[in-house]
Amino acid sequence: MTNYYGSQVSRLIEEFAKLPGVGAKSAQRMAFYVLKSPQERALALSSAILAARNTAKYCKFCQNLTDEEICYICKNDDRDSRMIMVVESPQDMAAYEKTKEYRGLYHVLHGAISPMDGIGPNELRIKELLSRLSSESLITEIILATNPNIEGEATAMYLSKLLKPLGVRTTRIAHGVPVGGDLEHVDSVTLLRALHGRQEL
Amino acid sequence: MTNYYGSQVSRLIEEFAKLPGVGAKSAQRMAFYVLKSPQERALALSSAILAARNTAKYCKFCQNLTDEEICYICKNDDRDSRMIMVVESPQDMAAYEKTKEYRGLYHVLHGAISPMDGIGPNELRIKELLSRLSSESLITEIILATNPNIEGEATAMYLSKLLKPLGVRTTRIAHGVPVGGDLEHVDSVTLLRALHGRQEL
Repeated sequence: MTNYYGSQVSRLIEEFAKLPGVGAKSAQRMAFYVLKSPQERALALSSAILAARNTAKYCKFCQNLTDEEICYICKNDDRDSRMIMVVESPQDMAAYEKTKEYRGLYHVLHGAISPMDGIGPNELRIKELLSRLSSESLITEIILATNPNIEGEATAMYLSKLLKPLGVRTTRIAHGVPVGGDLEHVDSVTLLRALHGRQEL
Repeated sequence: MTNYYGSQVSRLIEEFAKLPGVGAKSAQRMAFYVLKSPQERALALSSAILAARNTAKYCKFCQNLTDEEICYICKNDDRDSRMIMVVESPQDMAAYEKTKEYRGLYHVLHGAISPMDGIGPNELRIKELLSRLSSESLITEIILATNPNIEGEATAMYLSKLLKPLGVRTTRIAHGVPVGGDLEHVDSVTLLRALHGRQEL
């Protein structure tokens, strides 16, 4: 990239362009925003990056992101500690938290089994899940909420084979047509899953 | 926003979301990228923000962004110092530099006249342009390359009225159909401008 704006500005544009989903044009727009905004804004962004990178860690129980040793969900006595929902990422956990319905605990795997990407069961936080099962005798149900794609399904399958022999109830979130959509835009695999999973009214 | 990931991570997501063109989802993706990447990457981004904000200044001649007192274009003796192209932003300057054809100098206004946004001629770097005209007697042509929208046209009109009495040749970049497009997708104002600006072959 030619150095049109001086080396420091070019460096900032390059750094922004390394972020996921940020192209050359957006990176340039972000850099100019930083340059035009007050000094405090640049300082706030810069220090937020360092602070988050330095303090964020995984909850010792559920592996969710947190600033402390134990995350706010595992710490909360009002949660139903008999249920653990297994998700791939903290974002998926947040998505279910937004429903404000689920009151159980979570377990974040930090990925899904994907041999193509060299990710096997050992790369995921599965042993942490097993050690919770052996130490927290209250747990009666594990809800597998990995993504409804090939990797997520394979991970759910793998986990169910691992967990069932332990005598804990293992369930999978339902597949079906999304609420609010048009049937004509739903793929046929989903339509068939919705048909097979039909329920009495 | 609920604090799903601990306060430092949430703060980082909020800071990213303040950048132009970055929504809540992209901000979250960026934050997780920073958390997952090596410490050095976070440090590089964070320090690039501060370095750019602290060192970037405007060239004392053309008002382009630079780390030094005089930008690399104004410093370059090979450039044709008889021509000044007036643009709205450093990005527009960079766009013309990429053509690798224009060899004259630039002048960056840092905006365009826009009464709706409270931007009048005094908010733009116009007096700096006039002082270049009075001190650099070599200048024979001012090319007005403000954007082809209402604000840019108004600014070009304003500047031409200001500059013509000074006896300097003042030109405006041509309007017409963009190269490589389909006529059917070009708006009618542009089509008419292209017709009126037609040239002998």
